[in-house]
Amino acid sequence: MTTEATSLPGTGQESAASVRRITDDLLQRVEHRLRSFLSAQRARCAEVDERAVGAVDALSDLVASGGKRIRPAFCITGYLAAGGDPHDPGIVAAAAGLEMLHVSALIHDDVLDDSGQRRGKPTVHTVFSQLHGTRGWQGESRRFGEGVAILVGDLALVYSEELMPKAPPAALAQWHELRSEVLIGQYLDLAAAAEFSADPQLSRLIALIKSGRYTIHRPLVMGASAAGRADLAAAFAEYGEAVGEAFQLRDDLLDAFGDSTETGKPTGLDFSQHKMTLLLGWAMQRDEHIRSLITEPGHTPDEVRGRLLETGVPESVEQHIAGLVERGCAAIAKAPIASVWRNELTAMAVRADCRNK
Amino acid sequence: MTTEATSLPGTGQESAASVRRITDDLLQRVEHRLRSFLSAQRARCAEVDERAVGAVDALSDLVASGGKRIRPAFCITGYLAAGGDPHDPGIVAAAAGLEMLHVSALIHDDVLDDSGQRRGKPTVHTVFSQLHGTRGWQGESRRFGEGVAILVGDLALVYSEELMPKAPPAALAQWHELRSEVLIGQYLDLAAAAEFSADPQLSRLIALIKSGRYTIHRPLVMGASAAGRADLAAAFAEYGEAVGEAFQLRDDLLDAFGDSTETGKPTGLDFSQHKMTLLLGWAMQRDEHIRSLITEPGHTPDEVRGRLLETGVPESVEQHIAGLVERGCAAIAKAPIASVWRNELTAMAVRADCRNK
Repeated sequence: MTTEATSLPGTGQESAASVRRITDDLLQRVEHRLRSFLSAQRARCAEVDERAVGAVDALSDLVASGGKRIRPAFCITGYLAAGGDPHDPGIVAAAAGLEMLHVSALIHDDVLDDSGQRRGKPTVHTVFSQLHGTRGWQGESRRFGEGVAILVGDLALVYSEELMPKAPPAALAQWHELRSEVLIGQYLDLAAAAEFSADPQLSRLIALIKSGRYTIHRPLVMGASAAGRADLAAAFAEYGEAVGEAFQLRDDLLDAFGDSTETGKPTGLDFSQHKMTLLLGWAMQRDEHIRSLITEPGHTPDEVRGRLLETGVPESVEQHIAGLVERGCAAIAKAPIASVWRNELTAMAVRADCRNK
Repeated sequence: MTTEATSLPGTGQESAASVRRITDDLLQRVEHRLRSFLSAQRARCAEVDERAVGAVDALSDLVASGGKRIRPAFCITGYLAAGGDPHDPGIVAAAAGLEMLHVSALIHDDVLDDSGQRRGKPTVHTVFSQLHGTRGWQGESRRFGEGVAILVGDLALVYSEELMPKAPPAALAQWHELRSEVLIGQYLDLAAAAEFSADPQLSRLIALIKSGRYTIHRPLVMGASAAGRADLAAAFAEYGEAVGEAFQLRDDLLDAFGDSTETGKPTGLDFSQHKMTLLLGWAMQRDEHIRSLITEPGHTPDEVRGRLLETGVPESVEQHIAGLVERGCAAIAKAPIASVWRNELTAMAVRADCRNK
């Protein structure tokens, strides 16, 4: 990783700092784009009817509540590593579109998973269900809250499409792949949870699609393509799929053993929703009793956690994560980009996969 | 309506027949486009994993089950009336994209309305809830069925975006308006149903957005714009908003008094979902007791129907529909298009608003 094929002028400490500064600056512009876009949409809604702004406000609240912005970060890093012009507004639109799509996925996912918290705040469907109950409105509070969340998620999906036409046209092929692929991954995830049979191969496929490709590989290649470096696709795919799978496995571990005050969402949700994660798939293969601890009533998440630890599977998953990160970093070490960007991508892999939230 | 500003060669009976033939031929091509698109997507899914095809199959089943194809028909009619080339594949893509978006809206709407039937068959969420129950899968059957329907509706929304880039670029401005506008209309509809206060002005606004613009005005103007006749926008907007509002009011009457074997969906759904239709809004203003018949338990839909008839409001709605159709036809009578197309649009208005399904 120290012999450079191509080099930017100055690849020392200073250059790494400037790399972070350029990236952070672009990420700031993505934030600004998201907020100015949503405030323009709110004004459009208010023109139709003041009562219509609630849907946009729900979206703005979720965007404002933070999040890791990992897809914009990989898109921008892929772009800059490929030599893209940091002043081109197109990449800002592409990264903002990716985040808006993700917001849509989160809102719908939280309904699918019956999750009450996201980024430390009540989820969209929870907010509207509670509002419905408090006001004593007609109909069922659950249906109302989930109905609003369906529409608000749809709106975010449509808004992602309004942002994307401003992105460099070369980035759109990956965008087209990504947006339907992630839904197919989610469908497989839901189906696997319903059947809940240990199938580590399927668990890995779901992690590959839902995280490897959606979170890292395709955003990176979108960035590289936007900068005219489609030749980087193979190396970025190898890196992204490995690091992204590791990202998902880290999520699985955090769901099982993490701290909800850090993650901003409930823990143990994979147990209650019978998610066929690799963690559970491997554990169920080693210890048949785990399945009934999860599916039969009367067991606490702590019982599941204890039994999982006894199987030694969490350690195996940690080792698997380490192997994936290593594989990803090896792929990037050979990529024909400046060493400072190889280092940055290596650091990003480590940050994504060794986190506590 | 008999003095023509411009004329196609031969505006007699024969020409009217050829107009229908060209329109039907294009609508057939839209069907073919939808089916070949979905079958290509199914093959793509099967490459990922054979278990993933269920989501696309659910979509294909709904497309194959028929429907009025009213949005494609108005888009194509607007295009041909504006002198568009019937051999250009772009208009087929635009019309197919409109129908795919509508399929997405139907799937999500059926969850919002807790509706069990669509086009004479069980709705997507019902099919998957029942499958879940029959197989004895993990988790709650309702959440599983509705979760799958959320994802399948999302997939249809994404697919509509995959079809649309092949449409004539001039059609896209209307597309952008339409796709977020209809969601705002649905949000207002849901909010109005929850509050359930008589507000005929709001009911008319919702009908204008959800049907006037979404179903008729914007598809027509998409077609005209695709043919390079943006100058027709004002006349088509006036026609579309009036005829579309009438279309929605007809839907409301059919929901209240129609025959579900004809409509292919349950009747009385607006009552059980407390939809603030113009019919109910006006009725509640004339007779306060109607509200409690709908919101309080122990009353049958037949009681509501009987009381509605006593108010005389269904007749007022019929008169309002007739007035709207007249207004729409007057707008089209002045439009600078060939008389054969004016006649066709007049006939379409009557068909859309004097139907029993």
